[in-house]
Amino acid sequence: MITDLTVQDIRVPTSDDLLGSDPFHKKPDYSVVLTTLECSDGKRGISVVFTVGAGNDWVAYGIRELRPLVKDLNLESFMENPGNQYQTILNHHQLRWLGDGLFRMAVGGVMNAMWDLWAKEVEKPMWKLLLGLPPETVVDCIDWRHLEDCLSKEEALDILEQARPHKNTLESRFRETGVKAYSTAGWLGLRDEQILEKIDHLKSEGFDAFKLKVGQNLDFDKARIKLIREAIGPEEKLMLDANQFWGVDEAITYMTALADYDITWIEEPTARDDVVGFSKISEALNPLGIKVAAGEHIQSPVMFKQMLSSNAIQFAQIDPCRLGGVNDLLAVILMAAKYEVPVCPHGGGIGLCNMIRHLAIWDQTSVAAHSENQLVEYIDFLQEGVFENPVEVRNGAYVLPSNPGWGLEMTPEFVEKHLFPDGEVWRDREEPSGVTFVVE
Amino acid sequence: MITDLTVQDIRVPTSDDLLGSDPFHKKPDYSVVLTTLECSDGKRGISVVFTVGAGNDWVAYGIRELRPLVKDLNLESFMENPGNQYQTILNHHQLRWLGDGLFRMAVGGVMNAMWDLWAKEVEKPMWKLLLGLPPETVVDCIDWRHLEDCLSKEEALDILEQARPHKNTLESRFRETGVKAYSTAGWLGLRDEQILEKIDHLKSEGFDAFKLKVGQNLDFDKARIKLIREAIGPEEKLMLDANQFWGVDEAITYMTALADYDITWIEEPTARDDVVGFSKISEALNPLGIKVAAGEHIQSPVMFKQMLSSNAIQFAQIDPCRLGGVNDLLAVILMAAKYEVPVCPHGGGIGLCNMIRHLAIWDQTSVAAHSENQLVEYIDFLQEGVFENPVEVRNGAYVLPSNPGWGLEMTPEFVEKHLFPDGEVWRDREEPSGVTFVVE
Repeated sequence: MITDLTVQDIRVPTSDDLLGSDPFHKKPDYSVVLTTLECSDGKRGISVVFTVGAGNDWVAYGIRELRPLVKDLNLESFMENPGNQYQTILNHHQLRWLGDGLFRMAVGGVMNAMWDLWAKEVEKPMWKLLLGLPPETVVDCIDWRHLEDCLSKEEALDILEQARPHKNTLESRFRETGVKAYSTAGWLGLRDEQILEKIDHLKSEGFDAFKLKVGQNLDFDKARIKLIREAIGPEEKLMLDANQFWGVDEAITYMTALADYDITWIEEPTARDDVVGFSKISEALNPLGIKVAAGEHIQSPVMFKQMLSSNAIQFAQIDPCRLGGVNDLLAVILMAAKYEVPVCPHGGGIGLCNMIRHLAIWDQTSVAAHSENQLVEYIDFLQEGVFENPVEVRNGAYVLPSNPGWGLEMTPEFVEKHLFPDGEVWRDREEPSGVTFVVE
Repeated sequence: MITDLTVQDIRVPTSDDLLGSDPFHKKPDYSVVLTTLECSDGKRGISVVFTVGAGNDWVAYGIRELRPLVKDLNLESFMENPGNQYQTILNHHQLRWLGDGLFRMAVGGVMNAMWDLWAKEVEKPMWKLLLGLPPETVVDCIDWRHLEDCLSKEEALDILEQARPHKNTLESRFRETGVKAYSTAGWLGLRDEQILEKIDHLKSEGFDAFKLKVGQNLDFDKARIKLIREAIGPEEKLMLDANQFWGVDEAITYMTALADYDITWIEEPTARDDVVGFSKISEALNPLGIKVAAGEHIQSPVMFKQMLSSNAIQFAQIDPCRLGGVNDLLAVILMAAKYEVPVCPHGGGIGLCNMIRHLAIWDQTSVAAHSENQLVEYIDFLQEGVFENPVEVRNGAYVLPSNPGWGLEMTPEFVEKHLFPDGEVWRDREEPSGVTFVVE
């Protein structure tokens, strides 16, 4: 039985080094709300919700608000009917007025911690729990009300049944090769030599796909693209990310000017919720060989449904903390399979890499059942010393983890030091932090 | 200068009488976060953000969080450049990660209180302040980044310039006639005789347009529609509202079965954020004479942009508390004018009616510059004893208010009694309230 839900507000002053910076999020302080569900048998279900600093406490407040909806719940009843508990929270007759955004993120925080408990109960890493779920259970996890015009339950079952015969072979293969990853080297605020150093390091770890933040100035971006292309070589993949900085027509003009640079995708060329705009951009850029990616800000499965069914995006960058947790994510991965859009989860932040490994493995063994064009994001900081079991990459691929659950247990030293605002890292800072930290 | 920002969590147990009930929000407790900006000269800028109970404290937390972004601000600098302060908050480089939903609602709470201060500074009701704004100022209020593919600044200026010659005539007319309203009589949880009583009362006040909640059962809804049609007469307008209860195809089937009942609009037939789904529904239902309405859950101007430009909705039900305040609302009203979609603001709740009067008058005098097909929602409870200056309707139309600002000042008795959770109404209740109040 779940006896308590607690949250901790943990922030890292990443803005000091401009790590994670882009045209819109100029000085992010990578942060998480660490949610812990305490169980009467001593187990702890853990999840993180990622933010970029200010507002992390607001998420924490919301997750704490959901405490009465899980306290005293039996884990067994969740395991028997994992769709039920999710819908009790997500469709709470008063809370649902709050819309998506923060509310859905908080639901995700609670649900992902529930799933962590489940995986620990059966002593499996999350990916192994997901691989073992019967297709009927997967389908029962999902809130179908607003999705069935694009994917019916029967279609979802078909997709899972078709993948089933290949699952064991694929699992064995991934145990050897891992799941292919890519990494961002070109944070907006870094100097050229810092970027080159990062690329060198990533190449030495076997990476052959890299991302660069763009959007503010075409000449500057062209120079950066040339610099990176030279460093990585002509065959390697290069992706760009504008973090929603452009208007729709501006995105088309800007990217058309970059059509000769062999760009695999442009990520978030415009507003996160502009399905029609993304469609227009895809229509203009696809013939030039540029595909469009998005997901870290796509706020609901219904938004994904539209992005996928309208060919508004050609890469689905699911984020484990933006949606309502595993239940939402299963729905999106299934819809992506129907529309044959590769699932390339959003990593980075704190703990996202730890979570997306599991989702990518499920996709590549049990849903899409191939790994032809998926790329899973990886960032090379905030692992060692942060997590008890840091994410492992080998030859540019995620190694399949073996610890039970998500693998999100943080070291007590890291947590204590980075608690906001009273941890050692924050309490004596002279620079502004949180909401008061405004940059032009 | 703004010296402080305070918030109060105010809730009314409307669920006791099932007022406000619909298939998704079965037992709403109408609630507001009352935000007050204190000024050094003693003025108070006031706004409300409406919710249906649980989570109202979460909104309050968020608005309080934004305090450092307005404290010590000079009202003059806001009045000189009203777009600047809005973008400083809305595009805060860390907070914007939180998405729309709660974050945008909180921004709206702060911005609408700023606009209230402005109106009080010039001693005008909000509508009169808006009517007096030069077109250039209106355009400067707006965040154009993601809207210009549908409406350019030049087009917006054109719309405003074309309306200008008629403004005074229209204003004089509305001072006489008021702004046409409609009302919901058929709340889901009410008994037939309660609905008929409500209709009688509304008719005696001059109303000739009524709304009914539907969605759970076709036979039940047909019987209710017949009941109401008989009570209102064959010429009067009847609108339906499904509050997102259906899937896309289900909405089409359900409403096709109601095509013979002369329905003016079906409101929220499916998920709030399903532009593609709304388009499909409109395509199927428009030829049957049924139009589609939405807005109270449309979470951003970019979502409105798509709904309007795709003919996904034929009535734009802007909500004063869902978006980022007046600045967002001006953008949506201008886009609606471009696509010739009537603006029919969402009323109801607590205080929404008080706010939407002003926006409707601006639309009908200065933007659309006509009142051919707009209907402004009105509900007939939570005015007397709640507001110092309750909303007035006459002959089924909103009377133009004359007090400075929005007119949202609440009576101290009402506030004190309904403070959550310690006010007299709440402190001794045995029934559950807030998050713990779960209904199946």
